[in-house]
Amino acid sequence: MHCFVDRQADLPFSVRTLRHSLGNGTLSVHEVVDVVLRRIDARGPDAVWISQVEPAALHARAAELEALRAVGGDLPPLFGVPFAVKDNIDLAGSPTTAACPAFAYSPECDAGAVRRLLDAGAIAVGKTNLDQFATGLNGSRSPYGAPESVFGGDLVSGGSSSGSAVAVAAGLVAFALGTDTAGSGRVPAAMNGIVGLKPTRGLVSTSGVVPACRSLDCVSVFATDLDDAAYVLAVIAGPDPDDPWSRSAPVRGNECPSTDIRARLLLADDGALDFEGDDGMAAVFAGVADRAATLAAEVVRTPIGPLLEAGDMLYGGPWVAERLAALSEFLAEHPHEVLPVTRTVIERGRDFDAADTFRARHRLQELRAWCGRLWQRGDVLLLPTIPTTFTRAELAEQPVERNLVLGRYTQFANLLDLAAVAVPAGTTPDGRPVGVTLLGPAFSEDRLLSTARQLITREDA
Amino acid sequence: MHCFVDRQADLPFSVRTLRHSLGNGTLSVHEVVDVVLRRIDARGPDAVWISQVEPAALHARAAELEALRAVGGDLPPLFGVPFAVKDNIDLAGSPTTAACPAFAYSPECDAGAVRRLLDAGAIAVGKTNLDQFATGLNGSRSPYGAPESVFGGDLVSGGSSSGSAVAVAAGLVAFALGTDTAGSGRVPAAMNGIVGLKPTRGLVSTSGVVPACRSLDCVSVFATDLDDAAYVLAVIAGPDPDDPWSRSAPVRGNECPSTDIRARLLLADDGALDFEGDDGMAAVFAGVADRAATLAAEVVRTPIGPLLEAGDMLYGGPWVAERLAALSEFLAEHPHEVLPVTRTVIERGRDFDAADTFRARHRLQELRAWCGRLWQRGDVLLLPTIPTTFTRAELAEQPVERNLVLGRYTQFANLLDLAAVAVPAGTTPDGRPVGVTLLGPAFSEDRLLSTARQLITREDA
Repeated sequence: MHCFVDRQADLPFSVRTLRHSLGNGTLSVHEVVDVVLRRIDARGPDAVWISQVEPAALHARAAELEALRAVGGDLPPLFGVPFAVKDNIDLAGSPTTAACPAFAYSPECDAGAVRRLLDAGAIAVGKTNLDQFATGLNGSRSPYGAPESVFGGDLVSGGSSSGSAVAVAAGLVAFALGTDTAGSGRVPAAMNGIVGLKPTRGLVSTSGVVPACRSLDCVSVFATDLDDAAYVLAVIAGPDPDDPWSRSAPVRGNECPSTDIRARLLLADDGALDFEGDDGMAAVFAGVADRAATLAAEVVRTPIGPLLEAGDMLYGGPWVAERLAALSEFLAEHPHEVLPVTRTVIERGRDFDAADTFRARHRLQELRAWCGRLWQRGDVLLLPTIPTTFTRAELAEQPVERNLVLGRYTQFANLLDLAAVAVPAGTTPDGRPVGVTLLGPAFSEDRLLSTARQLITREDA
Repeated sequence: MHCFVDRQADLPFSVRTLRHSLGNGTLSVHEVVDVVLRRIDARGPDAVWISQVEPAALHARAAELEALRAVGGDLPPLFGVPFAVKDNIDLAGSPTTAACPAFAYSPECDAGAVRRLLDAGAIAVGKTNLDQFATGLNGSRSPYGAPESVFGGDLVSGGSSSGSAVAVAAGLVAFALGTDTAGSGRVPAAMNGIVGLKPTRGLVSTSGVVPACRSLDCVSVFATDLDDAAYVLAVIAGPDPDDPWSRSAPVRGNECPSTDIRARLLLADDGALDFEGDDGMAAVFAGVADRAATLAAEVVRTPIGPLLEAGDMLYGGPWVAERLAALSEFLAEHPHEVLPVTRTVIERGRDFDAADTFRARHRLQELRAWCGRLWQRGDVLLLPTIPTTFTRAELAEQPVERNLVLGRYTQFANLLDLAAVAVPAGTTPDGRPVGVTLLGPAFSEDRLLSTARQLITREDA
C-alpha cells in the first residue's frame, strides 16, 4: 500500500527532479502547471484545497518564469517548482480562511516565507485545508471536509496541516508550507509517509501567518525527501524585520562538532514509550531505533517524562489561552461560526489566570534546563512521530482525547525550543504509515537532517 | 554634601584599595573586620541591617583567611573584602526574611552568587534591609525601618535594595549584593551616589534568591566605582546548573567591535525626558549628556516611548501577577503579616487573566524587536537613573505614585533584556544626588562599563 507508486506513473514531483528537468529544458514550466492541474482534477473532491489559484493565473506565472529563462543567466533556486500553502499563511490574491469562512480576509501581501519562495521562482498552486485555526492534529476539524491519508483505509490525514501534507504525498505539488505549534507540521507528515521539517522557532518568518500560539508558531516544510526539505528550508530561513519573533542562529564557535560526525543518539528508556497498544507500530519503531543505534556513534538512554510534562502544558495548561488571546474578539462576535470542538478547546483558556501562566512558565524553564542538560549527553533524540494511527471514524468517536494521543510525541517541541524533522520509516504489517522524528536543540536543523540521512532506514513490515 | 568625605577619615573601603593593603600585608583581615564593626556601630540604628553576622563569627572568618595567607601562594581575588547581602538572598547561617518576619526561613545553603564571593575570600557582614519582597523602589516599605539616603535631608534611600546601597555608600562594606527586577539595583545607587551594576538576566545565578518576578530577577552589584563593580561581577558571573534561568553569554564572532572603540551614544529625543519639574536634576543631567556627546563617536537621538511602554507592563500589566505567583500561598496564609501597600500592589495581579498575559507578551516582543533595531543604530543609551528625588515624608504622601516615578527610567530594562549600569554624576545645586544609567543589549556589560569610564563625568552644580 504505497502511495508513492502512483506518482511514478507520471512525472516524479520532487524538488530535485523538477529542478533538473526544468533547468535543462526537457520540461517547461507550462508543462509542470498542466501536470499539477491534471493531478488535482484527477483526485476530485479530496478536501485538500480551500482555494486554488486560477489556471490562467498559473499559466501567466509560468509565462513570467519562462520569460526569465529566455533572458538567460542563472535560474532562481526554485524555478518553476509548484508548491501549496496552508490556508493560515497569506498568499496575496487568495483569501486566508484559517478554515473558518467567517474569519476570511484578503491579504494584500504575501507572508514572509511565501514571498521568499515566490522570489525564488516557485509557483504557488493554492491554499490547503487545515484544522480550524490550526487547532488540532487530526485533519478533521474543518468545514471544508476531512482529507483522508494517502494510505487510505479511512485513516485521518493528520493535522492541522492536513491539505499541505496530502498535496505533497499525493504528488500534486513538489513541496508545501505548513505551520507547526503542537505538531501540525509533523503529525500529518507521519500520517502520509513524507518528510515534515519543523524549524527552530523564529528561523523562518511567521509574518503573515494567522496566530495560534504566537510565541510558539513555526512555518514548516513538507517534502518527499530530506534533501528537498533542506533545500526549501534554506530558501525560506532568515531574519525578517517585520516579524518580532524572528531570530538569527547564534554565531558558532569552533567547538561546534561537524555534522559529518555521527551523532550520539538519544533513545527513550525501555518501556517509556506508549503506542496505545499498537503493537505493529511499536515493532516497526523498535526496528528503526535498533538499526539507528547500530549506526550511531553512541546510544544514550533518557527518561522522557519531562518532555511529556512540557507537552501537556500546551493544551492542558495556560498556553491554550494564547490561542484565546488571538481569537477572543472573533469568538465573541461570531459565536456560531466556529466549530464547536474548536471553540470548546480554545475557550478552556479562560480557566487560567495570569499567576497560573507565570507558574507554568517557571516550571517550563526548569524543563528547558533539563533539556539543556539532555543535549550535553546526546545530540539527537529519536522518537516515534505518532503513537498510533486513527481512522476518521475513530477520531470522530473521541475527537479531543484521540487528538491528544496524536500529539504525545510532538507537542513539547516548541515549548522546549527544539528543532524537529519527521521522517517516514515504513509501514505496519497492515499497511499503515510509521513515522519517526529526530529532535535537537534550537538551530540544530543541519545536524538533524544529516543524522536522519545516516541513521533512519525505512522498515516495511 | 559629599558622603564620601566621611570615609576618608578612616580606611577607604574600595575593593581595589582593600585588596592592595590586604595583599601587601599592611592591613590584616582582623583589622578590616574591626573597622567594619566600628563603622556599623558608629551609625547606630540606621535601618540598614536586618541581621548581622556575629563579631565572633566575623573574626573566625578573618582567622580562616589569615591562615590561608600563612600557607602562602596566591590570595583569592576578594581576600578579606567585606560585603553585604540583601536580605532576599540566602546566606547560610543567617535567616532570609525578604523584609517580612513571618516569611523568614533559615537557608542551609548560600545563594549561588554568595557562594562564589565566599569562595573568592570575601567576608559576608550581614543581611540588609529592603522593600518587602523586593516590591518597591523607594526603601520605605519595610517593617525594619526606612533607611535615609547618605545624602541626608530625609531623602529616601531608594529601593528595594535600600540597605545594600547605603551600606556601600556609607563605607560600611566595600561592595554589596542587591537584586534588580524593576530597578532595585539602580535606583538606590542613584539615591546614594554609588555605582549599581545590573547584569544581563541569567548572567549571575539567582539560585537562593527569593523570587519577585522570577523570569526577570537579577542579582546586582553595588560598589563605589566602576572598576570595583566590574571586578565583583567577574567573580559572580557564570553558569549555574542549579538555576534554570542561568544562561551563558553567546560566543562572539569576529565582527564584534572592541570595547576600546568609542561608543555610538543614544540619547533621548529633545523634550522626551520628564524630570517631574526638578529643574536642578534636569540641568545636571543635560550637562552630563552634553559632555558625553562631545566624547562619543557619534550621537544618535531616539524616542523612548517604547521603553516607557514596556516599563509600564511591570507594575501596570500582567507581570505583577508573577509576584503573586510566587507569593499567593503565603498571602493567603498570612494576610495580616504583609505590609498593606505591598499586599495591595501584589494582589493587583489578580486583575489579569492568562489571555491578557499572552497579549502583553506579544506586545512586549514587538517592543523587544524595536529595541533590537535601536542597538543597530547605537551602542549605548544614556538616561537619567531617576527623574527626581523624594524625601521619606514626600514618599509617604503618595507611596504608590511616587514609587512609580522613581522607576520610570529603570523598570523596562529586564523586560527588554538589557544590561545596565547606574553611575553617580554629581549633585544638584541643593545637594541632592544625580545619577545616570547606561543601557545596552544583553551581555553588553563590558561595553557599558568601558563607555561609562570614557563618557561619564561627575558634574557638581
